[in-house]
Amino acid sequence: MSQNYEKVERVTVPALEEILGKKFNILNDGFIRVVDYMGGDSSIVQAARVSYGAGTKKVSEDRGLIRYLLKHRHTTPFEMADLKLHVRVPMDAWRQWIRHRTASVNETSSRYSIVTDSTQTTNPNEWRSQAKDNKQGSGDYLPEDLGKKFSAEEEDIHKILFDSYNEKIDAGVAKEQARKDLPLCTYTEAYWKMDLHNLLNFLRLRMDSHAQKEIREYATVIGEEIVSKWVPHTWEAFNDYSLNSMHLSRMDKEALNLIVTGNYDKNSPEVREVFGVKPGKKSREHNEFISKLETLFD
Amino acid sequence: MSQNYEKVERVTVPALEEILGKKFNILNDGFIRVVDYMGGDSSIVQAARVSYGAGTKKVSEDRGLIRYLLKHRHTTPFEMADLKLHVRVPMDAWRQWIRHRTASVNETSSRYSIVTDSTQTTNPNEWRSQAKDNKQGSGDYLPEDLGKKFSAEEEDIHKILFDSYNEKIDAGVAKEQARKDLPLCTYTEAYWKMDLHNLLNFLRLRMDSHAQKEIREYATVIGEEIVSKWVPHTWEAFNDYSLNSMHLSRMDKEALNLIVTGNYDKNSPEVREVFGVKPGKKSREHNEFISKLETLFD
Amino acid sequence: MSQNYEKVERVTVPALEEILGKKFNILNDGFIRVVDYMGGDSSIVQAARVSYGAGTKKVSEDRGLIRYLLKHRHTTPFEMADLKLHVRVPMDAWRQWIRHRTASVNETSSRYSIVTDSTQTTNPNEWRSQAKDNKQGSGDYLPEDLGKKFSAEEEDIHKILFDSYNEKIDAGVAKEQARKDLPLCTYTEAYWKMDLHNLLNFLRLRMDSHAQKEIREYATVIGEEIVSKWVPHTWEAFNDYSLNSMHLSRMDKEALNLIVTGNYDKNSPEVREVFGVKPGKKSREHNEFISKLETLFD
Amino acid sequence: MSQNYEKVERVTVPALEEILGKKFNILNDGFIRVVDYMGGDSSIVQAARVSYGAGTKKVSEDRGLIRYLLKHRHTTPFEMADLKLHVRVPMDAWRQWIRHRTASVNETSSRYSIVTDSTQTTNPNEWRSQAKDNKQGSGDYLPEDLGKKFSAEEEDIHKILFDSYNEKIDAGVAKEQARKDLPLCTYTEAYWKMDLHNLLNFLRLRMDSHAQKEIREYATVIGEEIVSKWVPHTWEAFNDYSLNSMHLSRMDKEALNLIVTGNYDKNSPEVREVFGVKPGKKSREHNEFISKLETLFD
Repeated sequence: MSQNYEKVERVTVPALEEILGKKFNILNDGFIRVVDYMGGDSSIVQAARVSYGAGTKKVSEDRGLIRYLLKHRHTTPFEMADLKLHVRVPMDAWRQWIRHRTASVNETSSRYSIVTDSTQTTNPNEWRSQAKDNKQGSGDYLPEDLGKKFSAEEEDIHKILFDSYNEKIDAGVAKEQARKDLPLCTYTEAYWKMDLHNLLNFLRLRMDSHAQKEIREYATVIGEEIVSKWVPHTWEAFNDYSLNSMHLSRMDKEALNLIVTGNYDKNSPEVREVFGVKPGKKSREHNEFISKLETLFD
Repeated sequence: MSQNYEKVERVTVPALEEILGKKFNILNDGFIRVVDYMGGDSSIVQAARVSYGAGTKKVSEDRGLIRYLLKHRHTTPFEMADLKLHVRVPMDAWRQWIRHRTASVNETSSRYSIVTDSTQTTNPNEWRSQAKDNKQGSGDYLPEDLGKKFSAEEEDIHKILFDSYNEKIDAGVAKEQARKDLPLCTYTEAYWKMDLHNLLNFLRLRMDSHAQKEIREYATVIGEEIVSKWVPHTWEAFNDYSLNSMHLSRMDKEALNLIVTGNYDKNSPEVREVFGVKPGKKSREHNEFISKLETLFD
Repeated sequence: MSQNYEKVERVTVPALEEILGKKFNILNDGFIRVVDYMGGDSSIVQAARVSYGAGTKKVSEDRGLIRYLLKHRHTTPFEMADLKLHVRVPMDAWRQWIRHRTASVNETSSRYSIVTDSTQTTNPNEWRSQAKDNKQGSGDYLPEDLGKKFSAEEEDIHKILFDSYNEKIDAGVAKEQARKDLPLCTYTEAYWKMDLHNLLNFLRLRMDSHAQKEIREYATVIGEEIVSKWVPHTWEAFNDYSLNSMHLSRMDKEALNLIVTGNYDKNSPEVREVFGVKPGKKSREHNEFISKLETLFD
Repeated sequence: MSQNYEKVERVTVPALEEILGKKFNILNDGFIRVVDYMGGDSSIVQAARVSYGAGTKKVSEDRGLIRYLLKHRHTTPFEMADLKLHVRVPMDAWRQWIRHRTASVNETSSRYSIVTDSTQTTNPNEWRSQAKDNKQGSGDYLPEDLGKKFSAEEEDIHKILFDSYNEKIDAGVAKEQARKDLPLCTYTEAYWKMDLHNLLNFLRLRMDSHAQKEIREYATVIGEEIVSKWVPHTWEAFNDYSLNSMHLSRMDKEALNLIVTGNYDKNSPEVREVFGVKPGKKSREHNEFISKLETLFD
């Protein structure tokens, strides 16, 4: 190991440099901006190759290595790249966001600063119904005349709340107490830093169709507008091995095997038994299997 | 190392067992309950002793060892005990709470469940003024007649917001969207688990006089009513080496040395120079030093 | 939410209580013992149910809920149970073990204590060849006469190294320096605590056939002898949804679809093209797909 | 908040750019090189200021703000800067290093690659005696004639071990098994990334006089040669508020108060009683207090 280490340059990604500081607008008054970053696809490769020792030849192209690492969940090299964002997000979406504990965060303090009158507002055609098949999600949009009523009400409420807030501030109430009746949809701002491995986890969960629409819009911009430019090989691999992949449980495998080798129908008693579905009953897991089958066999 | 390991029993702390499940009421409608725990003072000692190897004699009593560990910031043995709480907390205090990233958390989902009409309310004599010396804290209570006005307003606001919420729920708006205009002071519930090392950090920050009054009330109950019973030696040591301790910076040490060896006055140019205070100017750091002096010399 | 919280009892798991402290022997002189634990299957259910709010009815049986959570990667409830082990492990296996950063650890200090002469030894029939298809694994056992030579050499080496170590200790060399030439296979001991979510991750990686045999033996005992007794529903679900599951990439799905809907052969140009395999070339990813097919279609 | 966000540039630190890739030699064959970094002193300020909201004026100069943050343990802004190192370290020092769990790490795999014959060697004048006052540290150097003997023995041992290792590799033993008898002082390499907040913790512990000499040499180079150039304001503040600071316990404060207000001697029964020292006995804590007094009063 007598090699002489030469001066190196920081890893730079021109496609990301171009959008540094650019404001991506989200919802009525939110945004995301890239503030800084460290590394790129080549940093992942660099870190992975140290595992093979200094004397190892370049066994594969960068793209191939990144795909191999991501496929086989060799996650540590993806921790070697970092992204720092400046975001403005409604507090109720921020509550979901902040549950990702591996981030570094500095949020605007409403104990220290007066809260700006900026809230997430809803157009009359944007009120969503409760999902029927899902206790936590949204379904179709509600009729617009109902929406008109709620949007008008929303405007009134925000006015009442911020008038009350400002009145308290003017009367000398402590900022940390005056904020208590502001609505959950008040915007907050933060600097937020995360490494790429954990960011992909964030995106997998928050770009998912089960995530709430609001945070999904942020996650989609981070993925499609930012990560795709920053680490294009990783982004492609993440789409192929995670976003567009499918997981088969032991039962899924057994049922699939019955179907292709034994010519059983997807609803046959034998297949249903694999999932423990009793005669005349329904089973969420069996239904989920049938959906997977349709994807594979159509 | 041929010793034969005998069956062991779980570490049990009778004083904590007595209050398992007991509801400590906090604020107008919040609470804390201990749900489960692992270990106690003896677990800390047990883990620390493995560091000395199987052959080492018991060099000190448990209390002495715990004090030594805490004094010298040997923090890992304190990770060997866990506390699990069930809490009900206003969401704006919860926002501060959740910033402690080393916890395990399951919070009630307002995407999944209807939000109960429970909010933090403020008595007329509990409205606090903005602190004068501190941009983020509270000062004295405001006059009660002003408080009466704000408390009445608060009641009206909560009624408006929950009426609107319930109206939307009844009209079929998705729960995840209907909640957006609820106030930050709405109560939420969670199961929250943390190891003792990180819990002491939480308490150091949240029992501090600079913490917001609301979260300070929770932290004080956790410390004084729960941790004190669970791990009494650790709690005593934490008081002696952390809560009631003092930190002297390089400048504090130099200034103190000038005063005791050179008979300089605390305001003398020589002392002020240590802190880089220019003539005729004030300096927060110099003032903080004088406060420390008063504690030590009075 | 006016319910009155009654005194609760700690979650206790009788099947685990029975083996508390019991030494599971591993390798020639290693072991694992359960020292303490918090929670069990019922703690996972308890934490998950807080997410549905106090008023929600029991929508499913415990086993079904645990399976649902694990299938859909709702991971936080699994953080609510903890396991604490006392282990003795060769240092080179410990190096892999300690890479799991979410554990709490207290390891015997060889700066503080004399290192006991306990090393991992290898029987003549246990020397493994380098894997042919895998740069980092082991293949078949080497011939026993070669093994005899290496085992004898191993014994000599350990004697030389511990004689030298003890000679240095006797001559007054600092323990922290004297240990420097001890072999990587020297046993170390530790208390090691991890929550169940992270423990399942540990088991997924370390019970895998690609993990080194030594750590795999430890992981297998933790899984099959301990976790299976502690949280039987979780263990069953983990087997069904993780250990015995299969992941299909976008390419796997497309190739499978070609085969079942278009009657393409698994080696046909169309299938190969999905994986980007050039004519006359081999591709690891294509081969891995064929292995999956064999599992599904046999 | 109508401000228009302009394109920004990455934070760049010219003094650190100058030493990117430069090899700092440590011990006989170790090194540290900076591979990449994100941010600098200005990133800490930038993140802290978001806490004060967009409308807040620049209330203090950067240096003052950084000192304020570090003094008052506002730690999150220091997470906003990252350092990535390439290191070569003896495995027994690496075992201490890797205990810092907040790092991202890719280490050379000796399952995958042949281990290079590079070990930490000791000159005849570098053998250290066991510390007398400290069960885990080193004291004076041993006589050089004794050192000569040990250094010669060390050379022999390393030859035996690497001859045996290479013999096994040549005979086809799996790399993951052949390495088992290599000495703990074998060098390993890694890419290692950590944020500045956690790096300062690492430095506080590993630059300390109680840390083992080997890791202390690495930590000192990281601190004095790298961090000092990268974030000079933070480094200065870290020296003033951490490295050169002093912590007074409740007992220290009480004893100090007795001495300065009551003219008690440092050994008087009243002072000793504060520390619970019984007549005719010694107490480590009392001795540590006397050392502090000497620092303050000399």
